[in-house]
Amino acid sequence: MYNYRLLIEYNGAKYRGWQRLQDSDKTIQGKIEEVLSKMTGESVEIIGSGRTDAGVHAYGQVANFKTAELYSPEEILGYANEYLPKDILIKKVEQVEERFHSRFHAKSKIYLYRIWNQVLPSVFEGPFTYYVPEELDLDSIKEATKFLVGTHDFKAFSTASKGKKSTVRTIHSIKIEKKGPLLEIKFHGEGFLYNMVRIMVGTLLAVGLGELKAEDIPSIREKGIRQFSGEKVPPQGLFLKEVRY
Amino acid sequence: MYNYRLLIEYNGAKYRGWQRLQDSDKTIQGKIEEVLSKMTGESVEIIGSGRTDAGVHAYGQVANFKTAELYSPEEILGYANEYLPKDILIKKVEQVEERFHSRFHAKSKIYLYRIWNQVLPSVFEGPFTYYVPEELDLDSIKEATKFLVGTHDFKAFSTASKGKKSTVRTIHSIKIEKKGPLLEIKFHGEGFLYNMVRIMVGTLLAVGLGELKAEDIPSIREKGIRQFSGEKVPPQGLFLKEVRY
Repeated sequence: MYNYRLLIEYNGAKYRGWQRLQDSDKTIQGKIEEVLSKMTGESVEIIGSGRTDAGVHAYGQVANFKTAELYSPEEILGYANEYLPKDILIKKVEQVEERFHSRFHAKSKIYLYRIWNQVLPSVFEGPFTYYVPEELDLDSIKEATKFLVGTHDFKAFSTASKGKKSTVRTIHSIKIEKKGPLLEIKFHGEGFLYNMVRIMVGTLLAVGLGELKAEDIPSIREKGIRQFSGEKVPPQGLFLKEVRY
Repeated sequence: MYNYRLLIEYNGAKYRGWQRLQDSDKTIQGKIEEVLSKMTGESVEIIGSGRTDAGVHAYGQVANFKTAELYSPEEILGYANEYLPKDILIKKVEQVEERFHSRFHAKSKIYLYRIWNQVLPSVFEGPFTYYVPEELDLDSIKEATKFLVGTHDFKAFSTASKGKKSTVRTIHSIKIEKKGPLLEIKFHGEGFLYNMVRIMVGTLLAVGLGELKAEDIPSIREKGIRQFSGEKVPPQGLFLKEVRY
């Protein structure tokens, strides 16, 4: 079998998320598999580095798939981009070792959350940002990020609490950048729990709005109860920026 | 009568342009008139600084309208933005002198044309740029702009050649800016003929691609024949940025 790695950009606005669903063709995975199956005549299954929810975007999702027949990367890239809808783009195709697995071998991921922070909304940035008209205290937000960086139990910042799987994760860095009305929060971590980025952003915004204090974060984290952390912010501000191997 | 000036931002992707049409409610003017008529109970007619075509966007279109009853600017702004679709935004409302006319009193306009200039397209910038994957010679494009700035007959750069109306216009400046893959061309002029910006951009791109030389522009301009200038580029890259009074 030949194994190919894909670098994928998508605008998630019109999709029900990454993962293929039986009753819907409106998933990113489903669309890509459909096109690659058509190209190869095989029933292609692609393995993503992880799922993204409905409405979440990606600059650099990574996936891999195997075929019985050999193709050149250029052939795959050209065919896929010709037949994929305009909101899904294959940016790069590489042939990789047969044992490469885009989920198991991922070392870390970078997520970006974009906030439109001024009184007036934007007709252009609306589908790609979360609109927060209130003034935010950026210094407090930066202060609060310190309590999230590192290796911690992030159970309080996740909605998947069933089962006995570990909820301990490592966050390497959280960076805050303000460019005009645009506030970007960049998370780099080894892995993230379900909804973890969106709940961390909601918690940081609660700090920025004065509803929580930066120093409240450690005790919220330690209690491990979802109800004490912030709201889950909406999907359209979230971008999977990069997967590192 | 009370007269109000509106500053308007819109994403033109889903509209048939600015100007109200009898057989369609998919125009920007039509949408705004509908909401303001509902608010006032009067049959409101808004006067735009000029039309924009189907698919063209605006950061700063200006329009005015009159009412028999007095409203506060805040009241109009709040009501309009509550009922307008998300791709049309009123950014500012001011009460102005009764004689103010947004078209007749406009002194100059700034248009921006955005080009996505790299091999890979973008799923996010697609609806707001013209995708040109070929390499462009920016120095030649800048050289060519010099022959368009000033007071000239722009007949060769317009598709409205019927009638005896003057096709002489004054362009104050043309600025080229490259930010990563994004090439922005900004036109500031006293007024523009129908399709003039899009044909000038097509002509500048022909120079950037080596199909025309910068020094060809004066003779194209002087001949005044549409066939000798460049193609009309598509609407989604065009933004009405500002109207000055």
